[in-house]
Amino acid sequence: MEPTRGYNFAAGPSMLPESILHEIKDELLDWQHTDRSLLETYHRSDAFKALMHRAEHNLRALLNIPEHYRILFLGAPARSLFSMIPMNFSSESQNAAYIISGFWSLAAYQEANTLANAYVLSGSETGPFLKLPDTSRQAIRNDTSYVYYTPNETINGLRFPSVPFESQISLVADMTSCLLSEPLDINRYALVFAGAQKNIATAGMTLVIVRDDLLERHQAHSLPAMMNLKLQVEHQSLYATPPMFNCYVADKMFQWIKQQGGVAHLYQNNLKKAQKLYDYLDHCEFYDCPVEKSARSLVNVCFHLRDERQNEALIEFARQRKLYNIQGHRKLGGFRASIYNAMPLSGVEKLIECLDDFAKETSF
Amino acid sequence: MEPTRGYNFAAGPSMLPESILHEIKDELLDWQHTDRSLLETYHRSDAFKALMHRAEHNLRALLNIPEHYRILFLGAPARSLFSMIPMNFSSESQNAAYIISGFWSLAAYQEANTLANAYVLSGSETGPFLKLPDTSRQAIRNDTSYVYYTPNETINGLRFPSVPFESQISLVADMTSCLLSEPLDINRYALVFAGAQKNIATAGMTLVIVRDDLLERHQAHSLPAMMNLKLQVEHQSLYATPPMFNCYVADKMFQWIKQQGGVAHLYQNNLKKAQKLYDYLDHCEFYDCPVEKSARSLVNVCFHLRDERQNEALIEFARQRKLYNIQGHRKLGGFRASIYNAMPLSGVEKLIECLDDFAKETSF
Repeated sequence: MEPTRGYNFAAGPSMLPESILHEIKDELLDWQHTDRSLLETYHRSDAFKALMHRAEHNLRALLNIPEHYRILFLGAPARSLFSMIPMNFSSESQNAAYIISGFWSLAAYQEANTLANAYVLSGSETGPFLKLPDTSRQAIRNDTSYVYYTPNETINGLRFPSVPFESQISLVADMTSCLLSEPLDINRYALVFAGAQKNIATAGMTLVIVRDDLLERHQAHSLPAMMNLKLQVEHQSLYATPPMFNCYVADKMFQWIKQQGGVAHLYQNNLKKAQKLYDYLDHCEFYDCPVEKSARSLVNVCFHLRDERQNEALIEFARQRKLYNIQGHRKLGGFRASIYNAMPLSGVEKLIECLDDFAKETSF
Repeated sequence: MEPTRGYNFAAGPSMLPESILHEIKDELLDWQHTDRSLLETYHRSDAFKALMHRAEHNLRALLNIPEHYRILFLGAPARSLFSMIPMNFSSESQNAAYIISGFWSLAAYQEANTLANAYVLSGSETGPFLKLPDTSRQAIRNDTSYVYYTPNETINGLRFPSVPFESQISLVADMTSCLLSEPLDINRYALVFAGAQKNIATAGMTLVIVRDDLLERHQAHSLPAMMNLKLQVEHQSLYATPPMFNCYVADKMFQWIKQQGGVAHLYQNNLKKAQKLYDYLDHCEFYDCPVEKSARSLVNVCFHLRDERQNEALIEFARQRKLYNIQGHRKLGGFRASIYNAMPLSGVEKLIECLDDFAKETSF
């Protein structure tokens, strides 16, 4: 179904399927004939527990997650994991290795550096993050507790087309902007996490998928309870009241993905969307796409106008056609079209048409 | 306006004003004529910043909060503050004092004890928490960094009718279940916090009100960024993407409280509601209200059936009349009617009628 409200290319919080918004609207005052809203529901009620159970069950099915991985719905921003990962899984005598490919992996490394012994395995701290770091000659230090990387960098639109690291050392990945938009071989990872506001729900929750044996390596020193991943797993995300509205939206999203044909189907669509847009950008002299071809994000397409004085005009031109939020991240400028699962192919086609019309009108 | 969906006496997430639910419903697909939902809105957009600004402005007006107190909308459960307070404001050479009056102050003390030097200033660790601890002879230790207490204990329904501690030492209070339901002299406090799911919004956010000079006493040692209150204040709650839907509901709630006549008016109504219910319970032999009279909560009314074998029957009897969630906390059993701001006097009257009819029917 095509959206009626235009297309929102924001990087997150991003566009949600309209059918989900209609469902939330319909249920807002009376959820499941309980005479109350989900917003007013007790988090230990049977109805809410059934929701959590279904959400987890569907997520496991969508990503083939075996039982020895635990799933957490944490009421915290993804950025909390930047601290929780070194605090939970690296001790004073260990080192944590970071692959830096953009703003978010750099921020994660900097945070780990203040809390544990962290080092840069590959990549640089200075950017501009337009190509992948060289991961062919990696000097792993002794006692490395885990290797951390960011498969898709949301701000600079850089993506690892495959897992960049082969070893017995635990691999940890921030999949905030790519989880559920492409197939995942979870068995390669010890821990994967994703903020909700791209492909899962809305802002205020982080999904964590963590392998049992990593939890067992949990550090014994005193951790703040809410940052203790083992404790959170033991309480099945209910150590404190969870972000219930987010869990509710996530449950709907997982059902929606299933209805769409699953992750494999959405991935094919995402490939098509990205290819079409990059193809256009590469062939039109008016625009420039600075990211190395082999490392381009499938979901965050960054580009520039060759004449940057036209930036504001293009944003307004697109807005008139109900194509919203194509401006780049405030740190980078330029443009970025985020085309997650909820963005239909028609949105990308309309954006290309818009870019092309703008190029033609402005060239004369 | 009386609710059409019955009355929900849950302790939290609790009943919301129906007018707010209708507004959320109406705006769900198109917030402020932006062609998108609040759920899909960029957190640094002008529209969302205006919302945050209005919410803070209204909260300051409702509680007379001066400028040298900062307000945070944190995307975390209230329980996170149990760790953040000792981590931010107590050093290795300091002591943190706790007044224990129930389950939540005990949990806060236990958490502080694993992270800092904490001691029990008054109260006991064993309960049953039916009367207030003796706070007349408090032996404050040297280098006490702050005194912590819980003005209203949600689970056992115990309330301090006035501030139990007079000193120059910083006072910290968990006001999760009482903020905005009674007047607050913020100048007595260095820090006050409240989880959102009672009188503010829905689960997934904690409101923090903190005085500048306490922030300046912030500990220099390495804190996880998301737990660093000074950093959060510097970024005006936007260090990470905030729990936007909760902020949106809170903004509506503050406007609603204003429309109701403000906190002073709601307090009068809350007094009336509580008095009526306790009066009935004290005068009916069928029920027992175990909490010491001078320390009874205004918003969490705990009681028992003298014949506890009737518990299930009473819950069902009330449910038939659309009076929901009167069962006590799972740790305590018995009954608890939570009657926060959104519960109208008519709800309490209907509950009394129900309790009385049940007593009469069961006595024969």
